[in-house]
Amino acid sequence: IGSHLAEADSQTEWTDVQKKIIPWKNSTPSLDLEMAFQDRAVKLGKSNSRLIVVASLIDKPTNLGGLCRTSEIFGASALVVGSLHYIQDKQFQHLSVSAEQWLPLVEVKPSQLVDYLQQKKTEGYTIIGVEQTAKSFDLTEYCFPEKSLLLLGNEHEGIPANLIHHLDVCVEIPQQGIIRSLNVHVSGALLIWEYTRQQVIKQKQQQ
Amino acid sequence: IGSHLAEADSQTEWTDVQKKIIPWKNSTPSLDLEMAFQDRAVKLGKSNSRLIVVASLIDKPTNLGGLCRTSEIFGASALVVGSLHYIQDKQFQHLSVSAEQWLPLVEVKPSQLVDYLQQKKTEGYTIIGVEQTAKSFDLTEYCFPEKSLLLLGNEHEGIPANLIHHLDVCVEIPQQGIIRSLNVHVSGALLIWEYTRQQVIKQKQQQ
Repeated sequence: IGSHLAEADSQTEWTDVQKKIIPWKNSTPSLDLEMAFQDRAVKLGKSNSRLIVVASLIDKPTNLGGLCRTSEIFGASALVVGSLHYIQDKQFQHLSVSAEQWLPLVEVKPSQLVDYLQQKKTEGYTIIGVEQTAKSFDLTEYCFPEKSLLLLGNEHEGIPANLIHHLDVCVEIPQQGIIRSLNVHVSGALLIWEYTRQQVIKQKQQQ
Repeated sequence: IGSHLAEADSQTEWTDVQKKIIPWKNSTPSLDLEMAFQDRAVKLGKSNSRLIVVASLIDKPTNLGGLCRTSEIFGASALVVGSLHYIQDKQFQHLSVSAEQWLPLVEVKPSQLVDYLQQKKTEGYTIIGVEQTAKSFDLTEYCFPEKSLLLLGNEHEGIPANLIHHLDVCVEIPQQGIIRSLNVHVSGALLIWEYTRQQVIKQKQQQ
């Protein structure tokens, strides 16, 4: 991934910031992980967003690479992937345009997701599934909490039933076309944007 | 594109709706074109959006295919491309998942764009460039008119200076990451979503 590194370096002044990839383990004290994120955000001069994007159910490297780029641009605090091996994939790298250098990546395998989501709940995160269900909120009506965790579904199967039970809420994007649904990278991008938009407006109101 | 057609047919009940691709010509009475869109929208049971997405400056078939899918899902009235040849491209088709069957596509070559934008202005459209400039509105603060035309920039060069003069307004997406900018499909998707969100809220307020 040499050329991507070179490209990233030439674009920025943060050549001294080390790449930091954090495999998540049940045994890892979560406070340390949070502090690592915050420390990194401060180093990078970024705002300290409390948005976690969980893409562990996503299979396609192109979608993961795109989500990496978009999550980084909107200052998400972390992108969670099912395997860190995706980062070596050429399609991932082509789409991420080296964003993985600047965004904390956490590895949580699909089999670990229930534990991970429960731990995040105890830390005050609202667990938000991006999924069409009978009880889903319309994205035009949903107000994101500051500590939001977005769980994105698999390209073909969405969010499996056993995980739906562990969500605090489902949010769906109102769609009026004939084609069934948005690409998962686009769905994720719209929720990341909507979270960001609401936070920007809140911050302006407080000033 | 046989398999895509088959997939589209199995998903829908509109197998009797013919594919309609409209090459734009200066000589085409624009009223006819507009009526063709509206007629089609009614046939398809869609709401009659007045959003036109102009992607004539975009080069990559993957971005065009993705925009086609996203534009269709949010009920844009048309997607304008620089060449209808893109529709035959396998990468376009892979990303569009047959949305080109359900969305009016108009061909406007980059050299025709000035004329096209001027004509749309006379029809009451606001010409909105998606571009970072000193005078751009922040997307969190911009209120879209009902008749909006989005002009997306080229992947590398954005919107050329000679076209900037013909825009009514530029809108930019606030970005806080280190990676320079969003993918053009994602940028377009966020503006299409924001237009849609505002229209949905207006409609609810009127009820």
